[in-house]
This record gives sequence, structure tokens and C-alpha cells, in this order.
Amino acid sequence: MSYKSIGYVLGWIMRVEGIFFLLPLSVAFLYREDTWHVYLGCAVVCFGIGRLLSGKKQGRHSRFFAREGYAAAALGWVVMSLIGALPFWITREIPSYTDALFEIISGFTTTGASILSRVEDLSYSALMWRSFSHWIGGMGVLVFVLQIIPVTSGQTMNLMRAESPGPTVSRLVPRVRETAFYLYGIYIALTVLELVLLLFGRMPFFDALCTAFGTAGTGGFGIRSDSMAGYSPYLQVVVTVFMMLFGVNFSFYYLLLVKKGRDAFRLEEVRAYLGIFAVSSVLIMFNILPQVGTISDSLRHAAFQVATVMTTTGFATADFDKWPEFSRMLLVMLMFSGACAGSTGGGIKISRILMYLKTIKRELAFLIHPRSVKTVMMDKKKVETTVVRAANIFLLSYLMILVASVLLLSLDNFDFTTSVTAVISALNNIGPGLSLVGPAGNFSFFSPLSKYVLMFDMLAGRLEVFPMLLLILPGTWKK
Amino acid sequence: MSYKSIGYVLGWIMRVEGIFFLLPLSVAFLYREDTWHVYLGCAVVCFGIGRLLSGKKQGRHSRFFAREGYAAAALGWVVMSLIGALPFWITREIPSYTDALFEIISGFTTTGASILSRVEDLSYSALMWRSFSHWIGGMGVLVFVLQIIPVTSGQTMNLMRAESPGPTVSRLVPRVRETAFYLYGIYIALTVLELVLLLFGRMPFFDALCTAFGTAGTGGFGIRSDSMAGYSPYLQVVVTVFMMLFGVNFSFYYLLLVKKGRDAFRLEEVRAYLGIFAVSSVLIMFNILPQVGTISDSLRHAAFQVATVMTTTGFATADFDKWPEFSRMLLVMLMFSGACAGSTGGGIKISRILMYLKTIKRELAFLIHPRSVKTVMMDKKKVETTVVRAANIFLLSYLMILVASVLLLSLDNFDFTTSVTAVISALNNIGPGLSLVGPAGNFSFFSPLSKYVLMFDMLAGRLEVFPMLLLILPGTWKK
Repeated sequence: MSYKSIGYVLGWIMRVEGIFFLLPLSVAFLYREDTWHVYLGCAVVCFGIGRLLSGKKQGRHSRFFAREGYAAAALGWVVMSLIGALPFWITREIPSYTDALFEIISGFTTTGASILSRVEDLSYSALMWRSFSHWIGGMGVLVFVLQIIPVTSGQTMNLMRAESPGPTVSRLVPRVRETAFYLYGIYIALTVLELVLLLFGRMPFFDALCTAFGTAGTGGFGIRSDSMAGYSPYLQVVVTVFMMLFGVNFSFYYLLLVKKGRDAFRLEEVRAYLGIFAVSSVLIMFNILPQVGTISDSLRHAAFQVATVMTTTGFATADFDKWPEFSRMLLVMLMFSGACAGSTGGGIKISRILMYLKTIKRELAFLIHPRSVKTVMMDKKKVETTVVRAANIFLLSYLMILVASVLLLSLDNFDFTTSVTAVISALNNIGPGLSLVGPAGNFSFFSPLSKYVLMFDMLAGRLEVFPMLLLILPGTWKK
Repeated sequence: MSYKSIGYVLGWIMRVEGIFFLLPLSVAFLYREDTWHVYLGCAVVCFGIGRLLSGKKQGRHSRFFAREGYAAAALGWVVMSLIGALPFWITREIPSYTDALFEIISGFTTTGASILSRVEDLSYSALMWRSFSHWIGGMGVLVFVLQIIPVTSGQTMNLMRAESPGPTVSRLVPRVRETAFYLYGIYIALTVLELVLLLFGRMPFFDALCTAFGTAGTGGFGIRSDSMAGYSPYLQVVVTVFMMLFGVNFSFYYLLLVKKGRDAFRLEEVRAYLGIFAVSSVLIMFNILPQVGTISDSLRHAAFQVATVMTTTGFATADFDKWPEFSRMLLVMLMFSGACAGSTGGGIKISRILMYLKTIKRELAFLIHPRSVKTVMMDKKKVETTVVRAANIFLLSYLMILVASVLLLSLDNFDFTTSVTAVISALNNIGPGLSLVGPAGNFSFFSPLSKYVLMFDMLAGRLEVFPMLLLILPGTWKK
């Protein structure tokens, strides 16, 4: 294990986080909140230490094999969170450090599960930092760092792989740095577009910026306790559309940019993603119609909640915990599926689900016709066996973490639905679950043990399991 | 598809079932119940039709490729159930044919989930037929048929594979017929041993026979509404021990028989199985201690419930639905793990779980040391990649059925815990779940749709998914 390389990456992450603190700092200035000195202090110290760790000397010999890449990513996210929690805690806006850490991990991992019962009590600067953390975590801080880091070695791919969601890394162009640049370009453009459309609907600027950050990262922290329920139908529809847009594989936008629109709309994952969205929305619409009243309201609420769960965002316009069992169950199932690979959404990812279904189909075909070919095809190309195997191993580790977490949470003795859906929600980076952790609830009542388990799950979900498993394995840290 | 071969196997299954009817027939005679003519009629008609279908002429050209083997097994179980439900329905002891079918599928698949609220209202002959169905289904009717069927072709392995639980078929000896003979020999010997020990504890003969059948098949139909709670601690301990014994891989007993005791006790699956049993029992003992009172009572109840769930039997000495959340959750997790491969128990099977864990471990080791070898070892032998792949595909199909079934059940609008655990219980052939389907409840309140879904799940669980999937695939039935 090359500790130098890891220290170098951690240093860069801290430098970048130091700069990110400038946004809540400006907000504190603007709203004349006396918390500005906390953000200033954090920014200076964070940047300073980062500068020391990531000097030119350290960078020269950095090498990232799979092990270093995964460990650096996992450790980077942990360090970033440990620092990111400080402002909440120092300002006493969240008096317990455990809770502050939970809140910021929930932010960076774009989960959106909160330990706060009344978000309205927070200062503007804290609200902005929460929502901004979604935006940072959505596309990934390493992807950001990779654009500016002066690493000469060609192994930065392992860093990107550790942070990118999905069974394969969507390298848009051969060079890692350029890919990172394109990804952030599309990300910023879409965020700005949403911001404009929200402002057009007369949403206040502060609300609009926080909402755009939360949507872009598919995070879900609201700045009101009723999440999106209080905004106009127009604004809800805009957010629905953008949640879905940010859940699309970013390769889609790249293909559009380079004028390969036909290829873009032929991507199987994107088609399946939109298909599942449409079918689920309609099913839930009919299911909740007696409860809601009109078809248009039912469809708007159904589509919003399906989008929020599929893309693992976690905003809410309605308390779906009170919906009929079929709708609740369908939403829980969609929590697992998640959004597209290579998007900002979490979950298992549609492309993996497609791969699983195709594997089953192929196996059945093989039983019927023993001479048929055992190949999984995606977008008319053969999927490598290593990719299929990796997707299977991902599912196994994912289920193992799910089972262990649910058991640990059940020690708190809350009901079955709460324990199970809290873990599902954390591991898939959604936000709300059902019962006590439903859209109208929060996560404050859990014991510290459960909170740390859920924090681990959120990080494991965001980094797709393996980096976090490596992090806690003693073998990783041997020279 | 060779329809002749399938008809031939179906014929044999019916002949055997006709003979099996003689047991409840004798019971009806003995207790002077006027239902005897129903069993006699069923026996004669069933045997007669079976005789026609399985004449010598049909047998001569029977061939069983994977497709025929799987289809014959699935269809055989369906036909056996359709006929087996008749006595309940004709005698009006279970007035609805759907319910009667549910009850007998639950019996044959050794699930033990009942639609009856008071089993005491049934006649002796019906009680015996219910419990006997566990015994028939436990080891498998095809395995029984394979001992007597005069098929000359060597492809009967595909029939056995379709019915045998676990990732590989435990062929004890090279010849299929001899293997089947040994399996039934061990099965009968253990059943008789339990019967004797139960009689020794002063259990009435009728109760003892039904209990022994239920334990042997890891079924779980009780002949009292309180299941095993009313029997003495001695009897409960005997049943605990025998549930565990029938959940052991039968290769273990074969190794003991041929005096390879050391090899037997080195089987990794058996060791893991006993280890999980011990740890879970102790954990639950401590967890329920405040509720139960004494350590000995807690341990007895904990061990019994762990055994009943792990081996997927489904007897109960206590209403674990009322236990603390940790115990309930642990039991739900154990429902998934199930017993050993090559036993009469259901579930995913310990050997598959071991394989999954080893796959994850191997992958992590590979990330740390890229030059390490990627091989899964079991009992110091290399596991074939095809076996690992099959275990993965099993899990995928299993989860797919789980998700689809839970969604369909939720249309009934019962609570989350009920819908989820009812499916888990059916798919793993356990019996009770939690909430409305807990040990004190039953399955009568579900809609017919849900009942048919659960019946499919029970059969899919018993036949390990693929035969049932093939059965409903149109492609299977093309010439």
C-alpha cells in the first residue's frame, strides 16, 4: 500500500473542500449571520492542511493501483465528511457531533436522510452547506479533483472507477481528465437550466439554488419540513423532470452533444429507465386515485414520488407512507432499482438489473436449447463475462451489508418496517423510508450504533460497496 | 419436447400417489371415519390413470434431457398436488378447492403454512394425509419413483437434479437408483428413530407419527392449533434435535455409514450449519431472557425456534412474533439461509451462502493482491465455475420471484410485514412468517390471487426456481 499516494489524494480533497466552504461563507455574509467565522476558519485550516499533504514532491511518485484507488476514495469520503460536519457542530446548530456527521454524510452521499425535525430552525449558511454537499457528492469530489490534479501517471482511472456509479465506468473520451471535464460541464449546465426554470416559476432565489443543488445531486435535503409539498404544481413538475434528467446516464447527454442523437435514444438502459418510470407512475396513479381525488393530482404526485425514489433523490410532495400498500411496496422496490449507471443517482442501477434479467433469460433459453449461445448482450454489444461477474459480486456484497445492517438496527427494537426500510433507504441513498422514517419522519431517534451503521451504509451505497469493504479490511493496510 | 417421456413420469407419480393414499385410508378405517370411501376412490382412480400413462410401451423410448427432466418434475408436482387436494375438498373438510390446493401444496413442499384456523376440527384421516404429504415431499416423490421406475436410459439424473435441493446433486454412489435407495433408507431409519423417541416421551401414537412425518420432511403442519407448545419439554427437545438432523446434508450420514466419520465431520457446510444454529440460539436466548424468565426455558424456546426456521420446518413452541425485534429479525434472516443442501430443508441453503461469502472474500483478496488466484474452495476442493455461476443465477431468479410476489401480494393491502414475510415464508418453505401470518395466525385471509402466488412460490422454493420458471415459459412446450 502506497501511503504517499493516498495522502496526496486526501490533500487535494481537503484543498477542494476548503474552497467549497466559500459558498456557505458568502451566504453567511449576505444574510449577516455570525456563523461566518466558523466557515472561514474551516476553509482556511482545511485548505492549509490539504496544501501541505498535496505538495509537488508528494505528487511526483503517486501511483494508483486498484487497491490504492479504492482505499483513497473511501478514506477521502470519510475525511471529507469528518471535516464537513464541523461547521454544524461548532455553531451548535446540531449539538451532537454524531448527528452532525450523519447529516453531512447523508448530504455528500446524496441520501438526504435527516436527523432534524425542523429544518426551518437552521441558519441560511447551514441550509446552503447541506444542499451544496449534495451537489458536491452527486458528481463526486474525486471526479472534480481529477480535472485539476497534476498526476502524470496514467493510473488515475482507478480513482475514477472507485467513485463512479454503475457496472462499468462511462469514460466518455479516452482521457480521464477530459472525461471528468465533460461530466462536470454537463452537470453545471443542467443545474443552471433547472435554476432558471425554478426562478421562472417564482421560487425565491435561495430556495431555487438549494433545490437545484438537491435535484442535481439526486440528494433530497429540503429546506422546509414539508419538503416540496408547499411549492406550486409547476415547480413540482420542473423538479420531477430534472430529477429524471439527472438520473439518466451522462453518456446520453454526451452522445447528444456530439450529435449522435439516434445512438443516445437507443441506449437500452435509458429506455428501460423511462419505461419503468412511466409504468410505475401510471400504476400508482390508479392506486392512489380514490385517496387523492383527481387524475391530474394523482398523476403529479405519483410521477413525483416515483421519480424521487427511482433517482434516489428523496424529495416529497406527499406522505407516501400513508398510501395504499401496493404503492408503498412498489416504491420500496424502486428504491432498489435506482437510476441509470453513470448518473448522479444511487441504488443497484438499471443497467445491472437489466444484466440480471438477461442472465436469467439466457439461462432459461440454455435449458430449453442446450446449444444456444450463453452471451449477455447490451446495446447490441456483447457484455464481458468479467462485467457480469462483477455485477453479481456487487449484488452479493450489497445483500450481505443489507442483512448485517438490518440485524444491527433491530437491536433498537423499532418495528420491522422501520428497521428494514431505514437500511434500504440509506444503502440506496434515497432519504425517506416507511413507517417512522417515512417522508414525514426523520432519523434522530436511532441509537448512536444504528446511526453509525447507517452512515457506513450511505457511504457503501455511494461508493458501490467495495471501497468501503476494503477500508475496514486489515489486509488493505499492509505495506 | 418429448411429451411421451413426461407422460410416462407423470403416470408413475400417479401410481405412487395412489398407493400413498392407502395410509389415510387405513387411518379412516381405524377411526371408523366415513371418509374412507373418498380415499379409496382417489387411490383407485389415481392408480388406474397412472397405470395407463406409464405402460411398458411408453417407457421404452423415454429420454430425459435437462428440459424434459425439469418440466416433468414441475408438472409432476403440480399434478400430484391437484390430485392430493381432492380428498380435503370432496369430504368438504376444506370447502374451497383453492384452499384445499393451498393446503396440500403447503404439505408436499414441506412449507406447513395452513389456511385452517382450527386444525382440531379435521378428521384423523385428513390430519394424517396432511402430515404424510410432508414426508412424501421432503425427500421427493421423483427420488422415490426413481427407485422403482424401469427406465433403461442413463438420463434419469436430470429428473433427480430437478428435485434435489442445493447447488450440486449429492450423488452418494455413481448409480442414480442406488443413490435414491440409500437416501430413502436413511430417511426412513431417522423417521423411525424419532417416532420411537417420541413414543418413549409418552406422546400418543397418532401424534407421534404425524410429528415424525412433519419433522422428517421439515414440513411443520401441527395437529394442534398451538403446534408444539402443549407438549412436554422432553418432546420439544427431541423435535428440536430431529429438525436439525433432517436439515443436515444426507451425504453426512452416508459418510458415517461407510465409516468415514472424520470426513463427515469435516464437511464445511455441516459445520457452518451447526455454528449458525448455536450462535443464533444463544443470541436469541439472551434477547428473550427478560420476557421468558429462566435461562433454561429461554434456551429451549430459542433453540427450537432457530431450528424450526433454519431447517424451514415451521413448528412452534412460542409465538416469536411477540419477541423483541432483534430476535424476530434474526429469525427472518435465518428463513433465507435455510438448511444444508441435500437435506429435506428448504431456503437458499447453507452451502450456497458459504459460496457467496467466499466469492466476496476472494474478490476482496484479489483487489488487494491482484496476482492472487480467483478460486472458490469448498471442503478443500475447487468449486467449478459453473457451480458458482449457477448459484448466482439461482439467487437472481429467486430475488426476482420474491420481488414480483411481494408486489402482487401487496394488492391485498395488508401491512408491509405481513406481505413480505408471507412471501419469504412460502418461497423458503417455512410456514409461519410475522404479523398476520405469525405462528399464531394463518393464511386464510388472503385473496385467491395471493393464494395462487404463494402456491407458485412454495413450488418454486421446493424445486429451486428453475423447473417452475420453465413450466410457465411457452418456449418449453414447443416440439
